[in-house]
This record gives sequence, C-alpha cells and structure tokens, in this order.
Amino acid sequence: MAEIPESHPRRNSLLTRQKLVDAAAKGLLAESAMIAQGRGEAYDYLLGEQTSESALLAIREVAARLRAAVRPVISVNGNTVVLAGESLIRVAAAIRCPIEVNLYYRSPERIEGLLSLLSEQREGLKGEGAPQGFSGNWLNAVGSVRLMGAEGDGRIEGLGGPRSICSAEGIESADTVLVPLEDGDRCEALIALGKEVLVIDLNPLSRTSMMASVTVVDEVARASEALVGEVIACQRGPSQWDNQRVLRDALDTMAGALERI
Amino acid sequence: MAEIPESHPRRNSLLTRQKLVDAAAKGLLAESAMIAQGRGEAYDYLLGEQTSESALLAIREVAARLRAAVRPVISVNGNTVVLAGESLIRVAAAIRCPIEVNLYYRSPERIEGLLSLLSEQREGLKGEGAPQGFSGNWLNAVGSVRLMGAEGDGRIEGLGGPRSICSAEGIESADTVLVPLEDGDRCEALIALGKEVLVIDLNPLSRTSMMASVTVVDEVARASEALVGEVIACQRGPSQWDNQRVLRDALDTMAGALERI
Repeated sequence: MAEIPESHPRRNSLLTRQKLVDAAAKGLLAESAMIAQGRGEAYDYLLGEQTSESALLAIREVAARLRAAVRPVISVNGNTVVLAGESLIRVAAAIRCPIEVNLYYRSPERIEGLLSLLSEQREGLKGEGAPQGFSGNWLNAVGSVRLMGAEGDGRIEGLGGPRSICSAEGIESADTVLVPLEDGDRCEALIALGKEVLVIDLNPLSRTSMMASVTVVDEVARASEALVGEVIACQRGPSQWDNQRVLRDALDTMAGALERI
Repeated sequence: MAEIPESHPRRNSLLTRQKLVDAAAKGLLAESAMIAQGRGEAYDYLLGEQTSESALLAIREVAARLRAAVRPVISVNGNTVVLAGESLIRVAAAIRCPIEVNLYYRSPERIEGLLSLLSEQREGLKGEGAPQGFSGNWLNAVGSVRLMGAEGDGRIEGLGGPRSICSAEGIESADTVLVPLEDGDRCEALIALGKEVLVIDLNPLSRTSMMASVTVVDEVARASEALVGEVIACQRGPSQWDNQRVLRDALDTMAGALERI
C-alpha cells in the first residue's frame, strides 16, 4: 500500500488497515479478519468514528464489572491484539487479570504468533510511565500480566471442535470475560455457563451484541484506550444495566447519520 | 474455512466470502479487497440483501445507457471479476462491448491473472444456452467479447501514477464506462473527461456513488445478474435521471432497517 499523507482525511482508518495488512502477511490473522474489519469500518463510519455518549457509559460499566469480578479475564483474537493489544495490557495491569489468546479458527502457529506479539507489546509498555491516576508499581503491574492461551487445557462447554478449547485457569474458570470482537456462538456459550460477558462490537445487530451482559458499540482500539482510564478511575460497583438501551442508542445514531446526509 | 451447511442462514454471504478468500490466495486481489467486501457486507445487510425497487430502476437506466452508448466499456477489478465476471461477460456479449481489467493497485501479475480468469469464464459460458430473450448467435457473441487491460497504452487524464494507465481502445476512448466497485478518484477523473460513468456500489455515501451519472446501490453479483436480462430486454433510450433520488432511497432503506430492529 502506498504511503499515507499526513493530511489524508481518512488517515487513521488507513493506518489501522495497514496494521492489519501487515499482521495478515505475518500469518497472525484468520482469513475472515479483513472482512470483519471492513464491516466494522462501515458501522464506524455511521457512528461518526467517535465514541458516543452511550458507548462511554457502557465502557464505564465494563470498568466497574471488571473491577468487581473475582476472576476476570480478557479474551483476545488476532484483530484485537493487533489493534488494541497495548491498551488491553494496560487494562489487565490495572485490574491484575490475565489476557488469553482465544481464536475462532485456532491454530498453534497463530496462537504462538499472537502471544509473541503481546509479549513484545508488554515489554514495550515497561518503558512507558504509568497511566494517569494509577497508584502502585506500574513496571511490576505490567510485567506480571499473564499471557495465556497456549495451554489449551480447558473447555468451553456447549461449543464443539477447536473453538471449545480455552485455558483452564483463564476463560474456563473466569466469572467475567471481556471479549472484544467475539463470535456469536462463543458469546452464547459463555453466557449459558453463567459468566458475565462484556463485549466491544461495532455492529449493534450482531448476536454477540444482543446477547452480551454489557455491549460497548465502539471501535476496539478507541474503546480499549478509553477503558484504561475508566478502569483506573472507577470507584463504584456494577449498576443495574439496560443493555438493550445502548443497542437502541447506537442504532438511532447510525440511522440518524444516514438520514442527515 | 470449514464447509458451509446448506441450511446456514448466511450461506450466500459465506460462499461469496469463500470465493474471495480463494482468489486472494491465488494473488488475484489487492490487499484491501477483503476490507472492501466487509464494508459491502455491512451495507448489504442494511439493504436486506436484496435489490431494492429503486436499484432496479437504476439497473434499467444503466441498461438503456449502455445500449445507447457509441463506445461503451465495462471496467472490472479483482473483486468484480471474481464475484460477477460471468454476468458481466453476458452483458458485454449482449451489447457487444469490451471488458477491461483496470486496477487501482496495478500489477502485471494481477492483470494477467484476472484476464486468464475472465477467459476461463468466457469459455465456460460458451457451453451454456443464450440468456432468455437474446436473439442472435450467442456462441459467437460470447466468443467475441474482447478482454482488454494488458495493453496499458492509454491514459486517464487527471490521475497520477499507475492508476492512470488504461487501454487506448478501451476506457480512454469510451464514451460510457460501467465501473462496478470503482474508487472515488477514478470516478471523478472519468466524469471530468466527459464520460458517462455508471456504477454499482453498496455504499450510497461513497464519493463514487455521489459523483456517478447513474448509481446502482446493490451487491455487484446480484446487480450484474439482473443487468443481463435488462440489457437484453431494453427497448428504450436513456431518460432524465435523478441520481440523488436513488441515493436518498438507499439511505432511507438503510435507516429504516436500523430503526425497525
């Protein structure tokens, strides 16, 4: 892809795309990853490519629920690691939870590749200062973020085949799972197991969005970055949460964008 | 990708995706092709994955303008050849115009690969009967569809670099160009050269959609298939055409879909 001029109106979008193209070339992404990104781009365009007020409320609720959880885990796939890995490591450091690479199309090569990338990202973060508001030893917090997924010694009941594989000490025993960009079947299975499922998904009409405990309808990199600050600042417990309401808000915003033009 | 069950509710969409994944593996598509497909999927979902009434009117207008053109040409890129190549060869056979492979990210390998694929598709069509309503020698009509794009001896004025390259006897000298899935800059350049530009684009908000002479807001395979019959049945000339109106209709349909759910 050609170099992207600083002045290009869609520079961020094109840079994001380039990150994925590079990751795909390294074999880190499933075949459908770029298609998923494209669908996301279309929805994000309709959202005005910004975090809406109701998405911010959802991010705050996710922060509160992650904080309140007994065994939270952040489940990541290829797109998530590439686009939002560093922010999610910061979140994991702040709440002291593991990150688990968990893939729809599982292959040992991709699991290893993504764990290596996360490990590099974690190393890179050690050189940075603590996020604003964080009290404690940041170097230590970041360094001790556990990266899981290679074990494959757990199962998600209700799913068949390789998709059911997870880590026994990660997703299998978690009470709360943050799963950006999840597939509908797995979201359903996790919910059926009684887990709290917190998702980031640009499509308010997806099965995942509609089934999750809390849905953040927002772009994964933007939402994850916002989540870092919210998780650190959070001082309240989970609230009564009307998830249908945020989905409705997102649909209204998108419909409004289509009507306004 | 796993085999797709006959009963899968999104079987067509998944089969389309598989065609593109296979073509990408053969090096026929640009890096951004899958992302473009994903964006299209999102818009098509909002359209209800069907040809709207106003899109059908646009397809009829495209048929009339192709018929009335002195030197029409059908410009195709990778996604178009893979998803709609056969239908567009039928259209070209019916109106006796060339098909030109013209790429945003031009490379000799991809041009050659796509010309080979079109050539295979053309051979395959010889074994089929004529489309309903076609009068004349179908075998002859299909066999004489000229496949251009390798020449690279023409230029699209107003564009820089490899994107400006086209065929002198194709796009350069055409008065009317059907360009499914076109990029905005090239659409603008073709319009500036005084050509009639007919497009098929699922995004009613794209620059291409907004600038074209006639925009068919529809999925490229579905629209191209419908165009075959319309081009053969067409018995009228071009009409006064309010292109803003079809864009508005498409936006209304999409906004309605978001509100209904």
